[in-house]
Amino acid sequence: MNFYPKPKVAIVGVGLIGASFGLALRKAGIPCEIAGVSSGRSLEAGLARGAIDRGMALEEAAQWADLLFLAQPISGIIETLRRLESVVNPDALVTDAGSTKRAICEAATKYLTRCAFLGGHPMAGKESRGAEVADGDLFRGRPWILTGEPNHPMARLLRDCIARFGARQITLDAAEHDRLVAWSSHLPQLASTALASVLHDGAPNAALVAGPGLLDSTRLAMSSFDLWRDILATNRDEIDRALDALIERLTAMRADPEPDFQTGGDFARSLRRA
Amino acid sequence: MNFYPKPKVAIVGVGLIGASFGLALRKAGIPCEIAGVSSGRSLEAGLARGAIDRGMALEEAAQWADLLFLAQPISGIIETLRRLESVVNPDALVTDAGSTKRAICEAATKYLTRCAFLGGHPMAGKESRGAEVADGDLFRGRPWILTGEPNHPMARLLRDCIARFGARQITLDAAEHDRLVAWSSHLPQLASTALASVLHDGAPNAALVAGPGLLDSTRLAMSSFDLWRDILATNRDEIDRALDALIERLTAMRADPEPDFQTGGDFARSLRRA
Repeated sequence: MNFYPKPKVAIVGVGLIGASFGLALRKAGIPCEIAGVSSGRSLEAGLARGAIDRGMALEEAAQWADLLFLAQPISGIIETLRRLESVVNPDALVTDAGSTKRAICEAATKYLTRCAFLGGHPMAGKESRGAEVADGDLFRGRPWILTGEPNHPMARLLRDCIARFGARQITLDAAEHDRLVAWSSHLPQLASTALASVLHDGAPNAALVAGPGLLDSTRLAMSSFDLWRDILATNRDEIDRALDALIERLTAMRADPEPDFQTGGDFARSLRRA
Repeated sequence: MNFYPKPKVAIVGVGLIGASFGLALRKAGIPCEIAGVSSGRSLEAGLARGAIDRGMALEEAAQWADLLFLAQPISGIIETLRRLESVVNPDALVTDAGSTKRAICEAATKYLTRCAFLGGHPMAGKESRGAEVADGDLFRGRPWILTGEPNHPMARLLRDCIARFGARQITLDAAEHDRLVAWSSHLPQLASTALASVLHDGAPNAALVAGPGLLDSTRLAMSSFDLWRDILATNRDEIDRALDALIERLTAMRADPEPDFQTGGDFARSLRRA
């Protein structure tokens, strides 16, 4: 493939995801220039890792870039969408890496009318944060959701990048995305947090007899609330529905757990065959 | 150490745990004769793996053995305790590997008055079952709970074996054991089963976006109800208390999850430092 000229990519938020995007572009051999928009400390880390070529202010990057990748927390992404409107290059595509999609897509529709927007969610992460632990293989084998398939040159570039990163591109509209992750990601997080939190009070000496099952069940509980505040706030209705279903199921299992061992076992095995 | 004569060990129930006990005795170089009491198929598998020297009927083993290790399901252990009373060697020690301890210790007190009993629970397992997958290192690094520290030569032998297996011996009375495992083992099992079961109905297409967190959270859900039926039946009061606390916590988190992220995170990290 030829790109004329070399596309200009701005990564807004040079943390784990943003810097990993830069490293993945390099590793995949995508010919592009990469600017980072972030705090001074993050820019230094991103430059040191080779994830970006230089730092820029948001206003400059908005005029310069062909593709803007917003990899901040959800509330930061929404604020950036507001700030981009007056300065963005009208031929650019803005995409993002936010963990919920309705609030972000609604903000893009409302605030960003001058250029194209395509919502995205690369489902990847690490226990540690920051450009220091960025990894050009972070997206390999992982789902990367896009909220549409627009006919825009930069959308075609993005889809090509995702394929070259070894990620699985999945198209879901924002509402279906948020519903699905409420069950598959947000509910397991809250269940693990709740389990660890009641164990803290009910069995503080559980470590005496902890086995691999307890470690598996409490791994997600180590997630930071900083990452979850915006997710929970922007997907509350879907999460509440899933939580209600879990509470109801746990209550029903007090009387007869056998059918749930069958159904739950079938589901857990089907996940592993997928 | 010298044992005069070589102790005779009967393993009742030559499945994964029973056969692994035999292999661990061999691996640790404990000089002993080992008989298995089990179905014909399990005896064949145990003999083929070298976990036992020969098969015996329960009545013969009860008169012959110095140490009887009951590694059946809980209801099978209780039935064996009843059958041993009229035939057991009065100098023998009977111990077990059941996953709950109150019902078994109560049955021993009630039925087995002719010889000594010491409740045990080696906290080890595998996803597969049977002597075919037995492993002489199954107990290495894992807790092995004993319900007392009786001054009996075979209890001293058992404690020495546990140490040589590389297991961590922990003394807990039956009630404290059952309370602790209700929180640390039975509650995580039910939470994982409930989560997988609601996902089956609420998000059957979750595999599209499944990440490592969902796999961790649903691993226990693959456990067979055959193994859990007796556990749930013999620890119902403690499990109900723990389940109630989890349901209450999940309900409270709908309003304000932040404190539970802190408390749960602290607990999850403390487990990993232990």
